[in-house]
Amino acid sequence: MIEIGERLLLVGENREYFVTAGEGQFSTDRGMIDLAALAGMNPGDEVRTHLGVPFTVLRPRPTDFFVHAKRSGAPMLPKDIGIVIAYTGMNRDDAVLDAGTGSGVAAIYFGKIAREVKTYEVRPEFARLAEKNIRNARLENVEVVAADMLAATGEFNVVHLDLTITPAHVEHAFSLLSPGGYLSCYTPFLEHTFVALDTAGPLFRDVHCYECIERELTRSTRGTRPSTRVAHSGYVTIARK
Amino acid sequence: MIEIGERLLLVGENREYFVTAGEGQFSTDRGMIDLAALAGMNPGDEVRTHLGVPFTVLRPRPTDFFVHAKRSGAPMLPKDIGIVIAYTGMNRDDAVLDAGTGSGVAAIYFGKIAREVKTYEVRPEFARLAEKNIRNARLENVEVVAADMLAATGEFNVVHLDLTITPAHVEHAFSLLSPGGYLSCYTPFLEHTFVALDTAGPLFRDVHCYECIERELTRSTRGTRPSTRVAHSGYVTIARK
Amino acid sequence: MIEIGERLLLVGENREYFVTAGEGQFSTDRGMIDLAALAGMNPGDEVRTHLGVPFTVLRPRPTDFFVHAKRSGAPMLPKDIGIVIAYTGMNRDDAVLDAGTGSGVAAIYFGKIAREVKTYEVRPEFARLAEKNIRNARLENVEVVAADMLAATGEFNVVHLDLTITPAHVEHAFSLLSPGGYLSCYTPFLEHTFVALDTAGPLFRDVHCYECIERELTRSTRGTRPSTRVAHSGYVTIARK
Amino acid sequence: MIEIGERLLLVGENREYFVTAGEGQFSTDRGMIDLAALAGMNPGDEVRTHLGVPFTVLRPRPTDFFVHAKRSGAPMLPKDIGIVIAYTGMNRDDAVLDAGTGSGVAAIYFGKIAREVKTYEVRPEFARLAEKNIRNARLENVEVVAADMLAATGEFNVVHLDLTITPAHVEHAFSLLSPGGYLSCYTPFLEHTFVALDTAGPLFRDVHCYECIERELTRSTRGTRPSTRVAHSGYVTIARK
Repeated sequence: MIEIGERLLLVGENREYFVTAGEGQFSTDRGMIDLAALAGMNPGDEVRTHLGVPFTVLRPRPTDFFVHAKRSGAPMLPKDIGIVIAYTGMNRDDAVLDAGTGSGVAAIYFGKIAREVKTYEVRPEFARLAEKNIRNARLENVEVVAADMLAATGEFNVVHLDLTITPAHVEHAFSLLSPGGYLSCYTPFLEHTFVALDTAGPLFRDVHCYECIERELTRSTRGTRPSTRVAHSGYVTIARK
Repeated sequence: MIEIGERLLLVGENREYFVTAGEGQFSTDRGMIDLAALAGMNPGDEVRTHLGVPFTVLRPRPTDFFVHAKRSGAPMLPKDIGIVIAYTGMNRDDAVLDAGTGSGVAAIYFGKIAREVKTYEVRPEFARLAEKNIRNARLENVEVVAADMLAATGEFNVVHLDLTITPAHVEHAFSLLSPGGYLSCYTPFLEHTFVALDTAGPLFRDVHCYECIERELTRSTRGTRPSTRVAHSGYVTIARK
Repeated sequence: MIEIGERLLLVGENREYFVTAGEGQFSTDRGMIDLAALAGMNPGDEVRTHLGVPFTVLRPRPTDFFVHAKRSGAPMLPKDIGIVIAYTGMNRDDAVLDAGTGSGVAAIYFGKIAREVKTYEVRPEFARLAEKNIRNARLENVEVVAADMLAATGEFNVVHLDLTITPAHVEHAFSLLSPGGYLSCYTPFLEHTFVALDTAGPLFRDVHCYECIERELTRSTRGTRPSTRVAHSGYVTIARK
Repeated sequence: MIEIGERLLLVGENREYFVTAGEGQFSTDRGMIDLAALAGMNPGDEVRTHLGVPFTVLRPRPTDFFVHAKRSGAPMLPKDIGIVIAYTGMNRDDAVLDAGTGSGVAAIYFGKIAREVKTYEVRPEFARLAEKNIRNARLENVEVVAADMLAATGEFNVVHLDLTITPAHVEHAFSLLSPGGYLSCYTPFLEHTFVALDTAGPLFRDVHCYECIERELTRSTRGTRPSTRVAHSGYVTIARK
């Protein structure tokens, strides 16, 4: 049952809104929605605007936070988050250290999968924004730490770095990992990728660097073809302790 | 603490073995390892061969099952499993239906993330092999069903199809999904991709088809370059109810 | 020596102009250039504006016509023109039939390489524009024909089709080719690509279809990375008689 | 009319041979072909084995030399040769300097397009093999020089470097180019690519670096998909004087 304060997705015909169950009215071009009425409903229920236009009430999934979370910069793309999850084998038994929180999108994805996530962000205003996004996702197992991950202690199954990488970061990540654990480093530029590879090389067991070129295949009445836009995002270096 | 019957990874210098804690000796070119001695140890402990060569004892992660599981055919690659997890936002609250189990590698990945997984496989001998691989992964929340997914009932947050797709499969998947849930279809060939896209188009809310071209960046004393081999694997069609 | 009426490239610091040697003044933000003074000069000579700012006078190369030719639509990209030249082995001994002239950029590239080029364009206004672009490139060996290539006769070493392809086009191309000659078909959409492949398959000896994904590697003080934009253009089907 | 000593392509059903018109017999599994009989024939004529199996006699095209030339190492792939031709706008008016001849395949392509080609190869045995391949292609306008291109003099419209690049090579190339001329550097590794880019950057007007990822689209009764093998070859840096 939906509680007051929960973030929700309202989906209607060609429209999608991200709202909070609670007080007040939410206005759309199809009429007003009473936000208080959402509390007590169940996901999948229908709510109607004062004009009678129906919307389905949904609990957001991690994909929705990628779209709707407030952003402090360009977040990692889902394809790259997926690469990190798959190549580290991230799972419900894992303690994950995430560094370079940004707006917290990766931390939300990880928090919905792993047992616990500590996410480090050196910029206090970014950490505050991420904190808010993570609370909206109702994740109790994700802790935002407004500090450099070099200060982190503890033992983790996965360490994920999305920051301006230095050898010290890679070395500290190694010391934080449990045996068999994985480091992943997300680096948009080759120069930083080389720092990750060259530092991880002598320390870790298996070191690989992947780039995932994602192409959307579009299909319309004109025909089918790969999207005319394909973005480079970054390299993902995966290393196992 | 490690129990009898548990599958384990033994990692030594340039060597890696996949064994079962229990009776008998496991012979390596560095000496014999007493498998009974593994029970009662903890992950990260060291075991030595009768020649004194040390190996670290590790609980396998999903990545290890991709490498070491017995195969009935070519499994989905981790990059594509990652794309499915990321674009469906698969998480611990999810009930997942997986169809086209194959050797069960995707089901193991999903089972380590989702609340419960039902995986359908029409070929009984494949279902049996997958069952064995899944038991080795000690997953209690994954059920192998030796049947066509067209026979499935229930409600799921994610339905993943890795089989020779027909409109009936896509339509049945739609009926099994909860509101806001995701269908993913993995199809190596364009013709099957078109079946997925064309059937999902009128039924689902958001339909996208992605191809992820993965390139490994290799770095050696000769220099750095993308791997000279890049594999096409398949298309991933993602549709939201 | 440069003649009156010749198209020329004037290259100065961060500036590049495409002009015609002849009468009048060409005005730039660095001063006026006397176009009559260009006739009689040699490529590589320097011309100065009335303010004394120097420009180098150059004869345009095919690459310049890609940039400066008047366009009737999106021309083939140089990477794809290069694929056609390389996979057909286009050379100075060749008679080339080009169909779907568009603005004539491919015909200019081909005309600067092959012995003779006939280029067919069904839309008269496109044919006229292409004619003008080709005359600007001072190519005597390129003939623009305002007709469908289905009306073409003669024998060619290479037939290149950049039009909405039908089986009849592929079949007629076959009849026009000399033994050992090559057909190339440029098709943005998969559906048209299939027409090319399926018609050429039983007729031609070697049939291959290529897609060339071009990525620019950018390097700045921030770092080195593939361009964040990569365009899909089209498929190139190559078939040998 | 075909002359004695000319290299020819004999094309039969599922068979293709590269032979020399002249003395002797060429044996195939479909019977013997009299090589003396080829002289005096015309391209497209049919020759028959002593068993009556027909073969078409063809003059080879540059594409055939890529396949049939004796190799001293891995030659540039046609896709990359095409990129060089297209981005330099190579044409019949050009003097081209090619360095790092290897087996001479690129020089043959260039020689069939440009007015004249000088190709430099420091390894004498490679130069001799390239000389032989180029003579087989009956190119009078290609000169093989067994020396480092640093020793080259003259003026060229295009300089193409396929060798272990140093700043000195790039700087010497600049001095050899006519105004508006193009340098192209083919480099398999990123480190060498950086040498090309960083040296060309301050010297040349327009500097771009491209990678062309070629994918073959395969189509069979099983279905249509990109080839499961895609090769990285190298980067092509293009700079204009």
